Amino acid sequence: LRTGYPEVVFCQGKTHEQVEKIFQALEKHNDNILMTRAEPALFERLAKVDGRLVYNELGRTISLENEGRQKSGSVLVISAGTADIPVAEEAAVTASISGANVERLYDCGVAGIHRLLAQTDKIQQARCIVAVAGMEGALPSVVGGLAPCPVIAVPTSVGYGSHLNGLAPLFTMLNSCAPNITVVNIDNGFGGGFSAAMINNGVKCDP
Amino acid sequence: LRTGYPEVVFCQGKTHEQVEKIFQALEKHNDNILMTRAEPALFERLAKVDGRLVYNELGRTISLENEGRQKSGSVLVISAGTADIPVAEEAAVTASISGANVERLYDCGVAGIHRLLAQTDKIQQARCIVAVAGMEGALPSVVGGLAPCPVIAVPTSVGYGSHLNGLAPLFTMLNSCAPNITVVNIDNGFGGGFSAAMINNGVKCDP
Amino acid sequence: LRTGYPEVVFCQGKTHEQVEKIFQALEKHNDNILMTRAEPALFERLAKVDGRLVYNELGRTISLENEGRQKSGSVLVISAGTADIPVAEEAAVTASISGANVERLYDCGVAGIHRLLAQTDKIQQARCIVAVAGMEGALPSVVGGLAPCPVIAVPTSVGYGSHLNGLAPLFTMLNSCAPNITVVNIDNGFGGGFSAAMINNGVKCDP
Amino acid sequence: LRTGYPEVVFCQGKTHEQVEKIFQALEKHNDNILMTRAEPALFERLAKVDGRLVYNELGRTISLENEGRQKSGSVLVISAGTADIPVAEEAAVTASISGANVERLYDCGVAGIHRLLAQTDKIQQARCIVAVAGMEGALPSVVGGLAPCPVIAVPTSVGYGSHLNGLAPLFTMLNSCAPNITVVNIDNGFGGGFSAAMINNGVKCDP
Amino acid sequence: LRTGYPEVVFCQGKTHEQVEKIFQALEKHNDNILMTRAEPALFERLAKVDGRLVYNELGRTISLENEGRQKSGSVLVISAGTADIPVAEEAAVTASISGANVERLYDCGVAGIHRLLAQTDKIQQARCIVAVAGMEGALPSVVGGLAPCPVIAVPTSVGYGSHLNGLAPLFTMLNSCAPNITVVNIDNGFGGGFSAAMINNGVKCDP
Amino acid sequence: LRTGYPEVVFCQGKTHEQVEKIFQALEKHNDNILMTRAEPALFERLAKVDGRLVYNELGRTISLENEGRQKSGSVLVISAGTADIPVAEEAAVTASISGANVERLYDCGVAGIHRLLAQTDKIQQARCIVAVAGMEGALPSVVGGLAPCPVIAVPTSVGYGSHLNGLAPLFTMLNSCAPNITVVNIDNGFGGGFSAAMINNGVKCDP
Amino acid sequence: LRTGYPEVVFCQGKTHEQVEKIFQALEKHNDNILMTRAEPALFERLAKVDGRLVYNELGRTISLENEGRQKSGSVLVISAGTADIPVAEEAAVTASISGANVERLYDCGVAGIHRLLAQTDKIQQARCIVAVAGMEGALPSVVGGLAPCPVIAVPTSVGYGSHLNGLAPLFTMLNSCAPNITVVNIDNGFGGGFSAAMINNGVKCDP
Amino acid sequence: LRTGYPEVVFCQGKTHEQVEKIFQALEKHNDNILMTRAEPALFERLAKVDGRLVYNELGRTISLENEGRQKSGSVLVISAGTADIPVAEEAAVTASISGANVERLYDCGVAGIHRLLAQTDKIQQARCIVAVAGMEGALPSVVGGLAPCPVIAVPTSVGYGSHLNGLAPLFTMLNSCAPNITVVNIDNGFGGGFSAAMINNGVKCDP
Ligand SMILES: Nc1ncnc2c1ncn2[C@@H]1O[C@H](COP(=O)(O)O)[C@@H](O)[C@H]1O
Ligand SMILES: Nc1ncnc2c1ncn2[C@@H]1O[C@H](COP(=O)(O)O)[C@@H](O)[C@H]1O
Ligand SMILES: Nc1ncnc2c1ncn2[C@@H]1O[C@H](COP(=O)(O)O)[C@@H](O)[C@H]1O
Ligand SMILES: Nc1ncnc2c1ncn2[C@@H]1O[C@H](COP(=O)(O)O)[C@@H](O)[C@H]1O
Ligand SMILES: [Mg+2]
Ligand SMILES: [Mg+2]
Ligand SMILES: [Mg+2]
Ligand SMILES: [Mg+2]
Ligand SMILES: [Mg+2]
Ligand SMILES: [Mg+2]
Ligand SMILES: [Mg+2]
Ligand SMILES: [Mg+2]
Repeated sequence: LRTGYPEVVFCQGKTHEQVEKIFQALEKHNDNILMTRAEPALFERLAKVDGRLVYNELGRTISLENEGRQKSGSVLVISAGTADIPVAEEAAVTASISGANVERLYDCGVAGIHRLLAQTDKIQQARCIVAVAGMEGALPSVVGGLAPCPVIAVPTSVGYGSHLNGLAPLFTMLNSCAPNITVVNIDNGFGGGFSAAMINNGVKCDP
Repeated sequence: LRTGYPEVVFCQGKTHEQVEKIFQALEKHNDNILMTRAEPALFERLAKVDGRLVYNELGRTISLENEGRQKSGSVLVISAGTADIPVAEEAAVTASISGANVERLYDCGVAGIHRLLAQTDKIQQARCIVAVAGMEGALPSVVGGLAPCPVIAVPTSVGYGSHLNGLAPLFTMLNSCAPNITVVNIDNGFGGGFSAAMINNGVKCDP
Repeated sequence: LRTGYPEVVFCQGKTHEQVEKIFQALEKHNDNILMTRAEPALFERLAKVDGRLVYNELGRTISLENEGRQKSGSVLVISAGTADIPVAEEAAVTASISGANVERLYDCGVAGIHRLLAQTDKIQQARCIVAVAGMEGALPSVVGGLAPCPVIAVPTSVGYGSHLNGLAPLFTMLNSCAPNITVVNIDNGFGGGFSAAMINNGVKCDP
Repeated sequence: LRTGYPEVVFCQGKTHEQVEKIFQALEKHNDNILMTRAEPALFERLAKVDGRLVYNELGRTISLENEGRQKSGSVLVISAGTADIPVAEEAAVTASISGANVERLYDCGVAGIHRLLAQTDKIQQARCIVAVAGMEGALPSVVGGLAPCPVIAVPTSVGYGSHLNGLAPLFTMLNSCAPNITVVNIDNGFGGGFSAAMINNGVKCDP
Repeated sequence: LRTGYPEVVFCQGKTHEQVEKIFQALEKHNDNILMTRAEPALFERLAKVDGRLVYNELGRTISLENEGRQKSGSVLVISAGTADIPVAEEAAVTASISGANVERLYDCGVAGIHRLLAQTDKIQQARCIVAVAGMEGALPSVVGGLAPCPVIAVPTSVGYGSHLNGLAPLFTMLNSCAPNITVVNIDNGFGGGFSAAMINNGVKCDP
Repeated sequence: LRTGYPEVVFCQGKTHEQVEKIFQALEKHNDNILMTRAEPALFERLAKVDGRLVYNELGRTISLENEGRQKSGSVLVISAGTADIPVAEEAAVTASISGANVERLYDCGVAGIHRLLAQTDKIQQARCIVAVAGMEGALPSVVGGLAPCPVIAVPTSVGYGSHLNGLAPLFTMLNSCAPNITVVNIDNGFGGGFSAAMINNGVKCDP
Repeated sequence: LRTGYPEVVFCQGKTHEQVEKIFQALEKHNDNILMTRAEPALFERLAKVDGRLVYNELGRTISLENEGRQKSGSVLVISAGTADIPVAEEAAVTASISGANVERLYDCGVAGIHRLLAQTDKIQQARCIVAVAGMEGALPSVVGGLAPCPVIAVPTSVGYGSHLNGLAPLFTMLNSCAPNITVVNIDNGFGGGFSAAMINNGVKCDP
Repeated sequence: LRTGYPEVVFCQGKTHEQVEKIFQALEKHNDNILMTRAEPALFERLAKVDGRLVYNELGRTISLENEGRQKSGSVLVISAGTADIPVAEEAAVTASISGANVERLYDCGVAGIHRLLAQTDKIQQARCIVAVAGMEGALPSVVGGLAPCPVIAVPTSVGYGSHLNGLAPLFTMLNSCAPNITVVNIDNGFGGGFSAAMINNGVKCDP
């Protein structure tokens, strides 16, 4: 159905044995493969099965870009705090293996707005932006006001107390005044990166 | 910043007098204007001020397409129940005034899956889909699995009891297994339509 | 009161010693016995006490079908994701020891609707269906629309973020538009299987 | 698909005009028709269109038993407080028009347990029971322990304060220790009655 | 202020060293001392300090009845499931050291109502009842209807899923139709036992 | 069962006609009668039926003290803000008709602690205290520390925003550090007054 | 206790008669008086009693600055959307009557960050800032990063859907990354203005 | 921007390696440095890097007062239970390194109000108070009524059951009747101490 997109395995809650079995089945097709929420030990095991696998430690992803698709366009992944980087990386890796040129802009929280404003150019040139934030989750609102393109907001579970494991930034993002923002589940970097790539790739200049 | 998109007034919580004043200020520029959450009586009042205004009764919108932009692409608005139509219409009107060709597909709830499946062609030809649903909010998951394009899910407040005024379908949509779904706030047809138009329009075939 | 149904022990929160003691008391009667939420180590211990005990590893159940009741009818257990299988198995084992013929249909999530539709025959021939799903929990709505029999929906705690440990699919299921759906607690495969068996068995063709 | 069951219209949130239109479309088929959540004024209007329509004031239902199906079996509707009767009636009317013999047992709250125990015979003879309760919602647990058949629990929004508009009894019912209980949405007498009828009717003595 | 009641230490969240220090300070006065939420290892340590200390393993309490007060009246502690016994024991030990004669009635869940009804005599002779229940928490409602005295309801965290770690039975109890029920925090056996003793002891026949 | 206590009608959600009918049935027995949540218009209607009825405007109660029981002991009703008085009055009227001498102490919020402390004598002489508070609901904690008797805490729905219609003070009261506090539902002055009277009356100096 | 601060009456939930009576009692002292949440009709009534009373229509306050205290320092009230102005005005009026010079900066939402940045000078010169916002409530985070003084964040109930009547911006503000932010209840302009004035006035250069 | 305040590192969720790297970067500037939520093992590691670092075991902070600023004014940190001390210490250390004289007043819960009242002098002499409390969180309301200065309320996660990990005292504090209270996130001693220091320092006697 969706040519140009990877086969994806969500490793959380699966044994290493199960993932290896699924991987071996997928490997027979010539698709790209992306495994998310993968621990280092899982990578070590799979690396022995197929030496071409690549591990992104921060993003906890294992990927195999079997059929090198030409990257195009521009997806910008912006994140707020250091602790949000794993989710941002999951988004970045997913968008990239799904065919998008990806640029990263990390540590741009709104409580120090000038760091973000210094990047206005990049924000205005992207085709689609993934904005990742925990704590109060205000980043997408500010980015949405600066960006002429769709912004996908990804709340993270980084925070404590009334943060409610990510519900606080999730609600912040859903209530944003900026009209060009849509939202995915807490910590769902994969979903944010996938949709961003689709938006980036999607219109094929021919209709 | 965002040429090609309307000036928008959210009328809920404003007096008719306030909206009229805002409208008169906007009218001086040559922009398109969209007023959402507008009651019939507000339209009657404004229609006397400017005879070109158009009212969408179901969607509760007033619009003025001042500078007729050529519609392009294809945004498909799918909704589940009859009571979801106001939100679906808000999305459709917004996407249209923002430059998209819009098609509607209403009364396609998942408990009668064959009505939806009969429209698989339309689902596969859209550039972006807005899927509107109250009650259990399962429609976007099914649509997401059928569609090769981004799907924007709009939960509605239509339901009762454990529906929690729309939180139930909101959470359904945020937890969808389909990777191409992003979500907006409960009853936010405007946000869904706006982002859909941006996705539909956005890539200008020239970067 | 309920002849034909097993004596049940809910092992979670009990020490192995306590379960063994309860088991020995029950064993004296000639009933069937079902122990749910049982770890492998508990089975190992009890297997030494009574060699006839059978362990279902996925479903975490220990059973003793002491007085072999003739299975009848047809309970169909459908589940969405791989991680939902433990709950589905708990339901299947329970329905079986309670007297029902049981058939399983796993990995039928709604985001890939065609896998499910390919089984329409089975869905239409069951006397009662148990539909098990985590994530967005949309499966029972679709099944409810296809099935001419009662559907018992079992939400699972499989998911993350706004999933709220199963509240998201629970609310999805309670708000379903399909009229033939009733719901049990999150992860309560036992309750789903028990009620399904009762529905399957219940009407004895003689009143 | 489901022969023997009525066409159903949920009137809440629809204009009288819309309901009349839907009714006229349904009327052409020879089905039974059930309209729920119908105000007196709506009945008055429709009664002029079709004199055969019957109004249940307490249950707020309008029905047309066009093709008189032979009632069979036995569905028992038990409710706790006086204020729960509208939901109980909605269940009773639905079960009846769906082909079940229906018996009512009202004002049987658990804080006066002897009134309920006095009806143990009826409880043990039913094929399926619908137990309706607001406030603390404890009724289904007690009934479940007395009944050898499936019990469908219907929480109501009758209560105040920490009742949370019915969430309190809903959670009570979902957490019941009785294994033969399944649950529907708050105030969903229709769903409870429909499933009860299906359980009552379902097994056709021929598979 | 409150002569006749013990000095109490809530051990949870304190180091063994801290508890020992507090104990040594209290020991100098001639009061009774009650330590709740105490692990076995803590008891072992303190037993070396003062050989008169008594450990209640199920209730996780350590007590020192230094000044033997004459027990009087009658507090009845009723609990529903086996897993609720620790909280019930905490209540029973507290009521006893606070001067009440205490009787226990365990494993009396409402889904098997006859076990409870068989004890109607005891229920009608108590001066105050503590009713402890997890899962759906329906026990106090039934007891309240049978008892001519105040009933203190103690919800427990025993349950899963929509049980919400005890919020479900807490709300059940707060919404009870029985007028003689008051409630304490989830798992707060101590508070239930203390207030029950006060009610039992309180009126001194002399005002 | 409970001689010496009134027959009670909860009028909220009943028509005037229904209440009149219930009243006429109860009136035939020689019990005391208490009607709670009664609007002025209901009283006007019933006053014509029975001239002995007494209306408490603030507490919204109608009472008939048919068989004048000798009041005894001492129940103290303390409330925090002016807006809490209706609930406090419901408690006071209930405790009185249930046989207790009742004293009132209103407008004693904890943010002005000295007003409360000035009444320490009364607090120390009561047999049972009902402490009524909305907003932050801190009153029972302070009273609990001053009182040598049981304190029944009644949260009210007076407040706004994060008050959550009374959930905020309800949780405050359930988490109180004072050991002699038990709690009833939000706005349940009736329940608080009834239990207080039972505690006040209960021990009959003869066991 | 707090000389220099007004006597305050919270009118919501009080009858006009009650407020008039309270006003007449307060009027006898020579204090300033502030009445919040006051409808126009209440002002009309009180204006006849005392012609010096001043009504702020947007902020719904009635004030009497009896003893004209010299204003000092600088409190800045910033608000996000038009619908937040009533709460902002309540804060501004309160801070002023409590002795602070007050400046207002309205319609500065973060989705159009440049409007806010254009006021950086004012933000850096204030002694205390009150930041009022509904919707996603992101304003205080951005202001907190720009301001060298304490910022009091006031969430408003302006929003819909997952806004949860103000809980969304409340949680946003409580989770802010800026270290100089403290928060008051939803819509509590009074509390925000009062504390801001205290901070502005408080240190008297003499300790 | 904020001279006189420390550079702050929130260590929770960072590896020791990451914190060391950040510390080494900050160390080059001549600022004071504060590290919060720091485990003993982290201190041991950093102490080898810079011998001047000071560890506060209870408050879990590491500090370096590089440029000794003269302390001024008076911040009073009051806490309720023993288990709240870690949060109180975090506040105290933060206020001190931010330039305030700090005094501590611990174990002053409201259920024993006289301990608190005995300190009325200190409460009335502080420039700003930080009031830290778990359980029911009533302390700030009482302190607010006694104090002529701003009170910053810090709820803690100390409690169980309906405490909801600190949401209960958070809501208590937000709903306080005392007008001089503002609130920070659950367990956010740092935020409370920082804002208190700012309030204490802020007005420089020169504007
Ligand atoms: N991090 C993630 N969060 C949510 N969904 C994911 C994630 N990674 C992968 N998925 C989805 O999970 C599917 C695979 O699930 P599974 O078959 O359980 O491995 C993929 O098709 C993706 O749509
Ligand atoms: N997985 C389960 N979830 C909920 N209830 C269960 C489960 N398994 C068994 N039960 C119920 O628990 C009862 C036994 O509980 P117990 O006496 O605590 O072992 C049985 O009668 C069943 O009704
Ligand atoms: N304000 C109240 N809140 C809760 N329960 C009440 C209240 N007033 C009366 N009741 C209870 O409601 C019962 C009467 O309910 P009903 O038969 O519906 O009128 C009485 O027996 C009381 O236990
Ligand atoms: N808008 C407001 N929100 C919260 N509290 C308020 C408000 N206005 C006034 N208050 C408080 O309410 C108190 C007066 O309450 P009352 O005696 O009920 O009129 C004042 O002392 C203020 O502390
Ligand atoms: Mg593929
Ligand atoms: Mg524009
Ligand atoms: Mg049996
Ligand atoms: Mg049909
Ligand atoms: Mg003592
Ligand atoms: Mg009676
Ligand atoms: Mg004053
Ligand atoms: Mg600095």
